[in-house]
Amino acid sequence: MRVAVIGGGQLARMMQEAASALGIPLAALVEARDGSTGQVVPDAVVGAPDDEDRVRALAERSAVLTFEHEHQATALLERLQAEGYSVQPSPAALLYARDKLAMRRRLGELGVPIPHWRQIRSETDLEEFLAQHGGRAIVKTARGGYDGKGVRAVEKSEEVGDWLEAMAAGGVELLAEEQVDFTCEVAALLARRPSGELRTWPVAETRQVDGVCSTVLAPAPDLDDRLAARAQEIAEQIAVGLNVTGVLAVEMFLSGDRLTVNELAMRPHNSGHWTIEGATTSQFEQHLRAVLDLPLGDTTPVAPHAVMVNLLGSVHEDPRHAYPEALGRYPEVKVHLYGKEVRPGRKLGHVTAIGEDLAELESRAAGAVAVLKGVE
Amino acid sequence: MRVAVIGGGQLARMMQEAASALGIPLAALVEARDGSTGQVVPDAVVGAPDDEDRVRALAERSAVLTFEHEHQATALLERLQAEGYSVQPSPAALLYARDKLAMRRRLGELGVPIPHWRQIRSETDLEEFLAQHGGRAIVKTARGGYDGKGVRAVEKSEEVGDWLEAMAAGGVELLAEEQVDFTCEVAALLARRPSGELRTWPVAETRQVDGVCSTVLAPAPDLDDRLAARAQEIAEQIAVGLNVTGVLAVEMFLSGDRLTVNELAMRPHNSGHWTIEGATTSQFEQHLRAVLDLPLGDTTPVAPHAVMVNLLGSVHEDPRHAYPEALGRYPEVKVHLYGKEVRPGRKLGHVTAIGEDLAELESRAAGAVAVLKGVE
Repeated sequence: MRVAVIGGGQLARMMQEAASALGIPLAALVEARDGSTGQVVPDAVVGAPDDEDRVRALAERSAVLTFEHEHQATALLERLQAEGYSVQPSPAALLYARDKLAMRRRLGELGVPIPHWRQIRSETDLEEFLAQHGGRAIVKTARGGYDGKGVRAVEKSEEVGDWLEAMAAGGVELLAEEQVDFTCEVAALLARRPSGELRTWPVAETRQVDGVCSTVLAPAPDLDDRLAARAQEIAEQIAVGLNVTGVLAVEMFLSGDRLTVNELAMRPHNSGHWTIEGATTSQFEQHLRAVLDLPLGDTTPVAPHAVMVNLLGSVHEDPRHAYPEALGRYPEVKVHLYGKEVRPGRKLGHVTAIGEDLAELESRAAGAVAVLKGVE
Repeated sequence: MRVAVIGGGQLARMMQEAASALGIPLAALVEARDGSTGQVVPDAVVGAPDDEDRVRALAERSAVLTFEHEHQATALLERLQAEGYSVQPSPAALLYARDKLAMRRRLGELGVPIPHWRQIRSETDLEEFLAQHGGRAIVKTARGGYDGKGVRAVEKSEEVGDWLEAMAAGGVELLAEEQVDFTCEVAALLARRPSGELRTWPVAETRQVDGVCSTVLAPAPDLDDRLAARAQEIAEQIAVGLNVTGVLAVEMFLSGDRLTVNELAMRPHNSGHWTIEGATTSQFEQHLRAVLDLPLGDTTPVAPHAVMVNLLGSVHEDPRHAYPEALGRYPEVKVHLYGKEVRPGRKLGHVTAIGEDLAELESRAAGAVAVLKGVE
């Protein structure tokens, strides 16, 4: 029943906490033995996701191969799958989380609501798109982007001159999307088994700062029941349409009554960290159950509200130095630190608060993060 | 901030799950590299608790030395403490969890309510005690007992003839206690920091089968507020009186309105496993915070009721073979398996259910255990 995960960051680390509880052995292919995952997984092998020997060796001794990020070697995974190994999600599905052009095309075919977009093959393409969309657009590299990287809001094509040059040189594909004036951003989270069972968590609101997720509120406080059901329906349509297995997070813009899909992640996602304490089954446990094709767990929240705030960078050399103050002032919050060295803006951990009074929970979680960050 | 724990069973395993979340490195001295703890702790060293070189090496590179069982080498721990290492709980406190004679004497001095008892130095002593207590007694070995081992209910001294012989040979100390006709058994759980802060969880009812904990209900459903407060008060008196640090579990008998202390454990305890999902802070997280002298977490339950049922042995070669049925029929329960090989009656895992309807929770948790055990 061993699960092999490719990736050595905080997501595989939190997967291990759930795997340990369930008595499921986890093996990880990690970037560094002393990284976030390597610190807590005895069965960690150092290697790159495209290192065929190492990935194959992991697959051979595991029941399933899964991932904590989308930057995988598609051809290698396709070979393994063709040889009969269980790869969850499948490389065919994973492509849509890895390549924004492929994702936009496929979601368009499925009739999923998405922002206006077009592939950019020249500066002229981009200038036309800008002219058609009020002089504003979001330009994205098709691959390699995350946490605001590979995404730029532009008004002039010169603002992505470097990308256009790289594209001309054949290294990069680009797309432009309308800049959606959203009321808020929401994320619909679900898990799906190869045999079809699917369970959704309540839709959460995500708040970004400089393109990076800062705060998650679950359930999304300003989403009415009809729109929440619609967001879940869209996510289910994507899960089934793309044959996603494991956890799927669908990030969406809400503009008035209009929901449009922004990004997909086929793995546990920052917008679902609240489920560790806030739901009967966490996204990490559910991902393991789903990729092993085991029955999924109940996703009911255990409290009316959950608030999760990311710890992005810290003034402290080590945020644990602030534990006496943070834990002392906020005994009700749950602190998660990922065992990473401090770098400016780096995701070092998160804090979750669950309970009945949303404003109080926000204040507690943000307060604890401020102390760990050293800005209070 | 490394915590070193001596012991390689399920308690250190579950400590690791909490340590990982908090970003606290855990090092463990384990019986076997592939044992319950060794499977999930990369920094596991194989060795015995009385292996001075290995224990000392662990202490030297850790902020604190702690334990998952009481069977420690007191003299070694005293030396390390005298040299300035942080040993939590201290060897002086730990002795009272390890030696039932020392515990009874000390609790008697503190005025804590305990059953009638006496040390047994001869067959005559035991016969006198039996005569004074209606012909019934519980005889215990002072050291080495757990889960019903080292404890016998007797009516005649011949029933412990082997122990009396061992005692005469100088290997064992014995005590006799009155056989308390209890209404139920309860456990008061708390944690205490070296600097004095102390937090209690709600008192739980524990149900034993053949001397082994089978089911825990938290809060204890039949304990009125006054008795629950009295049980907590007794546990606090013991924690302060014995200078306990870390988690303390005090098992008590309730006979009508009379509470008497049965056993002590100075570590996370089976009666507190419900806190993983059932309380804001679990006993495993709290133990780490306490031994590191960090502020303690809130102990408020997250649901009105929690029920925990142990998985003791299994008809299955591997209880995970029953996951499809157990998880499918009971999506709301949380299953914990400890990575142990099946042996008759062995503690292989536990199942917790939290919610509002106690009878339903009992039925679910016991139902999932029955499937994992293969008896349903």
